[in-house]
Amino acid sequence: MSRVLIIGGGGMVGQKLAARLLNEGLPGHSEPDITLFDVAFPPNGVVGATHKTGNLSRPGVARDLVSERPDFIFHLAAIVSGEAETDFTKGWDINMMSMWHLLEAFRNAHDTSGGSYVPKVVFTSSIAVFGGPFPDKIDDEFLSAPQTSYGAQKAISELMLSDFSRKGFVDGLSLRLPTICVRPGKANLAASSFFSGIIREPLNGKEAILPVESSVRHWHASPRSAAGFLVHAAGLDTARLEGRRALNLPGLSCTVEEQIEALRRIAGQGVVDRIKVKHDPDIIRIVQGWPRDFDPARAVSLGFSAESSFDDIIQTYIAEDLSNVSA
Amino acid sequence: MSRVLIIGGGGMVGQKLAARLLNEGLPGHSEPDITLFDVAFPPNGVVGATHKTGNLSRPGVARDLVSERPDFIFHLAAIVSGEAETDFTKGWDINMMSMWHLLEAFRNAHDTSGGSYVPKVVFTSSIAVFGGPFPDKIDDEFLSAPQTSYGAQKAISELMLSDFSRKGFVDGLSLRLPTICVRPGKANLAASSFFSGIIREPLNGKEAILPVESSVRHWHASPRSAAGFLVHAAGLDTARLEGRRALNLPGLSCTVEEQIEALRRIAGQGVVDRIKVKHDPDIIRIVQGWPRDFDPARAVSLGFSAESSFDDIIQTYIAEDLSNVSA
Repeated sequence: MSRVLIIGGGGMVGQKLAARLLNEGLPGHSEPDITLFDVAFPPNGVVGATHKTGNLSRPGVARDLVSERPDFIFHLAAIVSGEAETDFTKGWDINMMSMWHLLEAFRNAHDTSGGSYVPKVVFTSSIAVFGGPFPDKIDDEFLSAPQTSYGAQKAISELMLSDFSRKGFVDGLSLRLPTICVRPGKANLAASSFFSGIIREPLNGKEAILPVESSVRHWHASPRSAAGFLVHAAGLDTARLEGRRALNLPGLSCTVEEQIEALRRIAGQGVVDRIKVKHDPDIIRIVQGWPRDFDPARAVSLGFSAESSFDDIIQTYIAEDLSNVSA
Repeated sequence: MSRVLIIGGGGMVGQKLAARLLNEGLPGHSEPDITLFDVAFPPNGVVGATHKTGNLSRPGVARDLVSERPDFIFHLAAIVSGEAETDFTKGWDINMMSMWHLLEAFRNAHDTSGGSYVPKVVFTSSIAVFGGPFPDKIDDEFLSAPQTSYGAQKAISELMLSDFSRKGFVDGLSLRLPTICVRPGKANLAASSFFSGIIREPLNGKEAILPVESSVRHWHASPRSAAGFLVHAAGLDTARLEGRRALNLPGLSCTVEEQIEALRRIAGQGVVDRIKVKHDPDIIRIVQGWPRDFDPARAVSLGFSAESSFDDIIQTYIAEDLSNVSA
């Protein structure tokens, strides 16, 4: 039986992925043995998987996780962008050093196995690896020049994973996820949190704060698409990546204004009226440094797909998550 | 008086830089106090600077170096590409972790100073941060997708230095040096060593091995240009970098055949006859993954300059280094 380890399995995307794997398995692996690892888990989270609690940055934790020789590892754990910007030490510790310790644990297990153990590692990177000035659409050969600590830490983790993969210790790839929208649950410390908040809160009868101009353009995909990216990556033959193991994923480019128009079409003006504008200079500054649109030709040719309208993204939220919320 | 620290000051470029600084100083700093740090120094190296011996990867060494509050730090120390490829642990330890410990030592000194200590840090990166397939000329927005451990370690060091600089702990920039040619002295473990060897050895009456096809195209600059790049970088206002603190430097693109033609023009057929072809699959494979030509528009606009012909590069070697060799 295949073993799957989801590091960061208590987070929103980790839970979506776990639920999907419990239902559908992985391509060619119908009933995997699933372990979720995280610092904490939500009270009403998925059941049917093994839960382990711990902190990846502590000595020995990576080696302990790897000792069970998981075949597929999804590494989703991170300090989010806003917190990595305010807590410099914590961001580098969790977002970079933990990746290093994890890869060293894999290399050790590979060596101990006589070279037979080469797990598949799917790492969730981010479009925060890019920094402006940007072309109208970012193509697959555009430089990574991050303008946040979070982006730098993700870019570094990609480079480590690529080199450990090139050497044959693991078989890894990095997925530069669009901003995930609409995130269910509560706002988090990510500077991008409002992109979900302005849809989620009004649909749940609550006020939402819009901290930026409505002309801000951004790059989105739903939680359902995120889980789909991860499953597709796990089944992908990485020889097709030809040594470039970080991928810009498909998504939807739209403005905040277009997000609000979609919300109006689906839920009406009364719901839209719950959005209050209150500009936040810190968030405006961070978001200004983020990409707005992509031409993700490689990922599309490799079979990754996402939503094609923001209406679809809202409908996905309503179908999958709205009923779960206790308003 | 300004303090200058050259980490890797015992190496070839470090010695060239030290000699230049002892003669000319830095822009605006005519007689700096110069400290060279390295694991070892050449027997007939520069005099007039303080020499310190040590290993940057040992605990406390970075902090000790930083405790003297150098104003300008040139960080040139590295495990070269060939050795980083065969000794994975050593390469990551010296080329990545030492950079991390050094930056953390600077951050600590910055905090201890109440924020007033913000040293200028000039880091020698490499065109090995790039990996194929390449466009005809690599421009300033081309992605970093290294295909060697050395290249990954250099790319990661750039990202760290950029983020520590963005946060104001240091004022850093990374120079992606062309392959330095003609290197004086002996061959080293860099896979690029032969680009110098096929010029240097014949000029010194010795046989040289050419391990690749003569059609191989590569990107070169002389040791004199390398020292010039470093001095220019130390005097550069990094606000002009607009947040992109890694620069592709100017150089000369030519084939091995063109190198040999220049040698024939300058030194004659008898000297060229000392080059023996003996293909090495490992070196061929590594060199195939390297860039061949650049359009370094940003660096040129910032005032960096290099040779415009391989004849000039050979003449620089003859003028500066040939007489120093005991053939």
